[in-house]
Order: sequence, then C-alpha cells, then structure tokens
Amino acid sequence: MRFHTRKWVKPGDLNANGTLFGGRLLSWIDEEAILYSIIQLENKKVVTKFMSEINFMCTAESGDIVEIGIEVVKFGQSSLTLRCEARNKMNHETIVTVDQLIVVNLDENGKPLPHGKTKVEYVKDRLAREHQSS
Amino acid sequence: MRFHTRKWVKPGDLNANGTLFGGRLLSWIDEEAILYSIIQLENKKVVTKFMSEINFMCTAESGDIVEIGIEVVKFGQSSLTLRCEARNKMNHETIVTVDQLIVVNLDENGKPLPHGKTKVEYVKDRLAREHQSS
Amino acid sequence: MRFHTRKWVKPGDLNANGTLFGGRLLSWIDEEAILYSIIQLENKKVVTKFMSEINFMCTAESGDIVEIGIEVVKFGQSSLTLRCEARNKMNHETIVTVDQLIVVNLDENGKPLPHGKTKVEYVKDRLAREHQSS
Amino acid sequence: MRFHTRKWVKPGDLNANGTLFGGRLLSWIDEEAILYSIIQLENKKVVTKFMSEINFMCTAESGDIVEIGIEVVKFGQSSLTLRCEARNKMNHETIVTVDQLIVVNLDENGKPLPHGKTKVEYVKDRLAREHQSS
Amino acid sequence: MRFHTRKWVKPGDLNANGTLFGGRLLSWIDEEAILYSIIQLENKKVVTKFMSEINFMCTAESGDIVEIGIEVVKFGQSSLTLRCEARNKMNHETIVTVDQLIVVNLDENGKPLPHGKTKVEYVKDRLAREHQSS
Amino acid sequence: MRFHTRKWVKPGDLNANGTLFGGRLLSWIDEEAILYSIIQLENKKVVTKFMSEINFMCTAESGDIVEIGIEVVKFGQSSLTLRCEARNKMNHETIVTVDQLIVVNLDENGKPLPHGKTKVEYVKDRLAREHQSS
Repeated sequence: MRFHTRKWVKPGDLNANGTLFGGRLLSWIDEEAILYSIIQLENKKVVTKFMSEINFMCTAESGDIVEIGIEVVKFGQSSLTLRCEARNKMNHETIVTVDQLIVVNLDENGKPLPHGKTKVEYVKDRLAREHQSS
Repeated sequence: MRFHTRKWVKPGDLNANGTLFGGRLLSWIDEEAILYSIIQLENKKVVTKFMSEINFMCTAESGDIVEIGIEVVKFGQSSLTLRCEARNKMNHETIVTVDQLIVVNLDENGKPLPHGKTKVEYVKDRLAREHQSS
Repeated sequence: MRFHTRKWVKPGDLNANGTLFGGRLLSWIDEEAILYSIIQLENKKVVTKFMSEINFMCTAESGDIVEIGIEVVKFGQSSLTLRCEARNKMNHETIVTVDQLIVVNLDENGKPLPHGKTKVEYVKDRLAREHQSS
Repeated sequence: MRFHTRKWVKPGDLNANGTLFGGRLLSWIDEEAILYSIIQLENKKVVTKFMSEINFMCTAESGDIVEIGIEVVKFGQSSLTLRCEARNKMNHETIVTVDQLIVVNLDENGKPLPHGKTKVEYVKDRLAREHQSS
Repeated sequence: MRFHTRKWVKPGDLNANGTLFGGRLLSWIDEEAILYSIIQLENKKVVTKFMSEINFMCTAESGDIVEIGIEVVKFGQSSLTLRCEARNKMNHETIVTVDQLIVVNLDENGKPLPHGKTKVEYVKDRLAREHQSS
Repeated sequence: MRFHTRKWVKPGDLNANGTLFGGRLLSWIDEEAILYSIIQLENKKVVTKFMSEINFMCTAESGDIVEIGIEVVKFGQSSLTLRCEARNKMNHETIVTVDQLIVVNLDENGKPLPHGKTKVEYVKDRLAREHQSS
C-alpha cells in the first residue's frame, strides 16, 4: 500500500476527549479515496458509494502525524474498489482500516459511466506519453 | 427510529461536484452517535469503535435539510450498539444508513468501563426522579 | 417547545477562555431557525430578518451536549416568528433564549412572498397526504 | 463609530441562498465585541452577557467586504456596554446593528470583577506611558 | 501603517504546540491584502501574485489579539505592492512582517488589467464626491 | 522532490473569485513543512521561522487535486531548511514554490535545540533498526 497524504493533528481536529475526532478521520479517508479515484479514472465527477466495516484500532493525539494509504482492490466497469488505511506516521501503528471503499464514475447527469480503466496508472507516465506523441 | 438532529447543507459542506461531501456526512453521523451515547451512558468519555457497512443511497444539495436518526440495537457490558440513518427531511428519502455503530464506554485511563445500563433512558425522566428524591 | 437538534461541544467550538464561543452558539441558533422555517414554509429561500434580545444565562464546556429548541410564536403573511432556546441536554439548564426570531419568506428575486401557512405542519403528515392522494 | 475589523466574504461564509450566512455575521460581531472589551478592560477573561435586538437590514455576497464597528455606550462597574454595526465597506450600507451588547469582566473563577475603567483608552497611549515611566 | 483588522486567537487557530498556527496567520495576511486591494482598486477580481520573505518574529497564544496592518508601497500599472505587518495588539510586538506583497488587478477573463490608480483613496471621500455630484 | 500530501479543492477552499484561496494554500504548505520536520527531527515541537519569496504561478479550481512536495535544502544545527512546491496533480503544473522554508527545532521551553540530524531518514528504516536491535 502506498501512502500519498499526511495530516498534522491540530486542536481543531480533536473531540471533547482530546483525541482525534473520528468523524474528522472519516472525512480525511473519504477525501483521499475520492481524489485517488479522480486521478485513476481521469474524471472529476466521482462519488463514494459504499464503505465496508470500519474498525477504529487506536486513536491519535494533537501533534501526531497521520498518513492515509490507498490501494486498488478491483476495477469495476463504472466503479473502483479501494482499500484504505490510516496509520500513525511515527510508529506505523494502524488507526483505522477500510477493506472496501467503492467509488463510482459518473457522467454529467450523475449516472454511472464506464471508465474503461483496468490497471493503476501514474500521472508522470501519462504526461511522458503525451510528451512523446506531440 | 427517532431523529434528534438536523443540519442545513451550506456551500462549505459541499464537495467539488456541488453535492454534500460524504466525509462531512460521516462526521455528522459520528458526532450524533457519540453524543447519543454520552446521554445514554451518562459518561462524557466514549469513543466510536466500529461502524458496519455504509451505503450511500442518494445525496443532498445546498439548501437541503438532513436529519440524523439513531436507535439502540444492543446494550453491551461496556459498549452500546446503535443503528443510524441520515435522511432528507423534506421527502424522507434515505441518504445513508449504518446498521451497527459500536460506541465504547471508557474510564479515566481510556480503558473500557462497564456502564450498567440496559435500556434507553430519557433525561427528563432522570431529572424528574432527582427532583422527587430531593 | 420541541428540541430537534443537538450539538457536541468540541475544542474547535471554544473561545479563548475554554468555554463555548458565543458566536458559535448564535450560528447554531440562526441555522436552526432557518431550517425550521424552510420545513414549515416549504420554501428554501428564507432569511433571518430580526432577533430580539439575547440573554446568555450560562455557558457550556467541551464535551457538553447542547440542544436547540424552536417553537412558533406567530405566522405572519410572509414571515414566521419563532422562539428559540439553547439548553444543556444533561441538566436542562438554559444557556440562551431568544423570544422573537423573525424569518421572512422570499420569492426568487429576494422579495417578501406570502407563504399561506397558518399553523405548524409535520412532514410525515404531508407525505402521508401525498401518498393517499396518489 | 470606529471600524477596526474587515472581513472578505468567501464561499465558505455563505448560506444555501448564496448570501452571507447570518450566523457567521453574528460570530464576527460577537468576536469583535469580545476583543474590543479585552483591549479596553485589559483582561482576557470577558464574556458576552446580553445582546439587544438585531435588525438584519441588508445582506452581503461573496466578494463583498464587511467592516465591523464598535463604540462604547457605557462603562458599568464590572461590565461594558457596546454598540455595534456591520456595514458593507464599499458603499457604507448598514447590514446589521446591535444597539446594546453587554460584555462582563470576570475574575479567575468566572465571577464578575470590577474593572475600574471609566473611559476609552488607546493601547498606544498606554505603551507611551509605560515608556515614559521606565 | 494603519491596522484595519483584528483577530481573537481561539483554540481552533492553534497548532499542536498550543501557539497560533503559522498557516492560519498567513491566511489572515493574504485575506487582508486582498480586501485592501479590492477597496483601493475598486475591483473585486484581484489575486495575490507574490509575497517577499516572511520572518516569524514571535508567536501568539489563545486569547491574544492580533491586528493586521497594511500600507501601500507602490501602485503599478495593473498591480499594487503592499507592505504588511501582523502584531500583538496589547504590546505592539511584531509577529510577522511581509515587505512586499504584490496583488494583481484582473479583468473578467483573468488577465491583468490596468487599474488607473496612483494614490490611496478612502471610501468615505469617494462616497462624499458621489453625493456632491448627484 | 517527493510529494507526500494531496488535497482535493472543495468549495470551502475557494476565494470569492471561485479559485483556490491563496491563504488556504499557504496553510497547506506550512502544515506540510511542519509535519515533514517533525518526522525528520523526531521532535513534535518545531516552528516555522522563515519563508523565502513566494511566487503564485497559477491557481487551482474546485475539483482540482493539489499535491505538496518537500525536499531538504540544508540541515542546520537546530534548524532545517526545506524547499517546497505545490502543483496540480493532473498536469504537474506548478502552482507555487518556496525555495527556502526554515523550521526550528525547539526544547520544552521554546528555545532552539540542536537536533543532531545531518541527513534525511525514513521512518520505515528507523522502525526496522528498532526491530533488529530488540
């Protein structure tokens, strides 16, 4: 799994117990899944459709650094299934995992749209190809 | 199911597609589960431990009113299992459901603490009892 | 008075004294008045026009649960006058009351629009009627 | 009246109608009253106790500049009564006025504390005096 | 230099060390530069193009009052160069200075647009002139 | 340069022109510099001391993905000098660069503290070493 995003836990991210607010963490994970899908599917109009069970294994405190990792589980016809993990950057302790997070590719009217993708691509490779062919 | 909290969807709650950001909705649900548990367990130190599958059935737009409902599924020894639903207030269309959301009751050191509760209580009844006995 | 919305006071809601920031509480009250009016008037375009005196009776702290109550004082021709109270959920202690909060019903150009409503309605009754008549 | 603070209305400040959210404006006014009182009373522990009627005269849109003005109405023994106005900076159109906003000076235990102030002071004069006497 | 805006540092503005988050302060400075430029150039479509070196001289804590000052360094043809300072209101200690902050005046398509301004103007003078000529 | 963090630009991140608010981008850059320093210096108490010139080369819009890159320029005795770049993930167009961003390592009293580091380290290597030696 590759971790592409880091967060610095600040007082505004805490719940009333002084630990990272779970809802904030879920927001971070959802955002990461969405932006990862936008990159893979080359389409800005995607939505989260499903998240499998979420286990909160440990928490984080103010000053901790959380990193969010994503890997592709499956390319569907108009969807993308991801696995997601949030962990403490300093000790690699897992905070939360989501085994299946399904994002759907939409057309302009918000209907599912086949995306034609079957494997993970990297933006730098796409840009290199564009450069070669021009 | 009783709905105790309402939200007015504003531009700051939207994702880049102009619909309600899923992460924001998950934050609202997590907050509602936590505060419902604080009320039932009469303990401010509770944490979300587990959320079962989340199905995003439809979305909401700026100006919509979302209400969040909670009902108790089970009182564990030191936990509380809740069912949660978010729906559009105006047409009662379900936006998202979470069948099991487990909240754990903690002691001062953050260890699970038996809460001794076995059924739903209402604050007004507690206050009435306190009044009678004084 | 019925209380339809609850808030969990978190560190990001506090002022520099460590108590609930008054401006945050006023935001919550204004939002509640607006969304209640949207539901009653069945129109998304409504604005707060007037708030009567506001007395801050006590405050709230991180971890407290605040609930916001609304009741209708008067249906005007194109306005709705509400009474609003915010109280601590756990002990029903009043935090703030606003005796008159006037919301105006607007047309598409932002001009006052008669709403034709004269009494409180419930969405479930509206939905039942729609169901019967269809 | 002197205007000491300006705000740039951004999308995150809007309500669902695309105009400045009233609750946001009330937050800005409350913050301004509090910080003005901290400066005058030379005490960081002050709270808003009362706001008189609030008339929303016009609104603001994304991109507008709002300035917030404050003047002292009365120095009480442990309180300070302020008048507040928010207006559009570009045309000086009044958005909202609050004729009386009472802030209370508190001691460390949160009890009202006489502040001994009877007139408006400027920080630069205080600093000059400190400089002279040293 | 004139200081037109004040901020009350609250818990949600802090970093994990309990001092004012530098990024928050930079946001405040950028907003102030933009809104000052909107007022001077009488155009809502302006963008920050350049900031010179930023020295963080001291910090601020929760409860402190920060004021942001701006002065014009130079009127360019389609730009405006500003000097900016943030200081602690109570002791006038400098928190941060930015010697050159260049804001560009844009046309509707986002291209630089000559603004025709050569000196600082005050809104009240503009309004007075409009009043006289009408 | 390695890019460790991504952001999805949402409506709440925009300025009144509908493009990414510069102050928000500076917040993201400052946060990234700080958390990168915490990881390298293995100390949670670090502060931004200096940022060199900032050139805003292009902007971003709602729905864009911004990635933030960091590389070490120099290890000082109690400081760390970083170079930072924010770019559009989809086309690798540079949005902003900061050539020197100096972060200072602090002791518990907020005084500069020598950190003893001279080269970039990876957390996974540190964890592997800990594992071997135990």
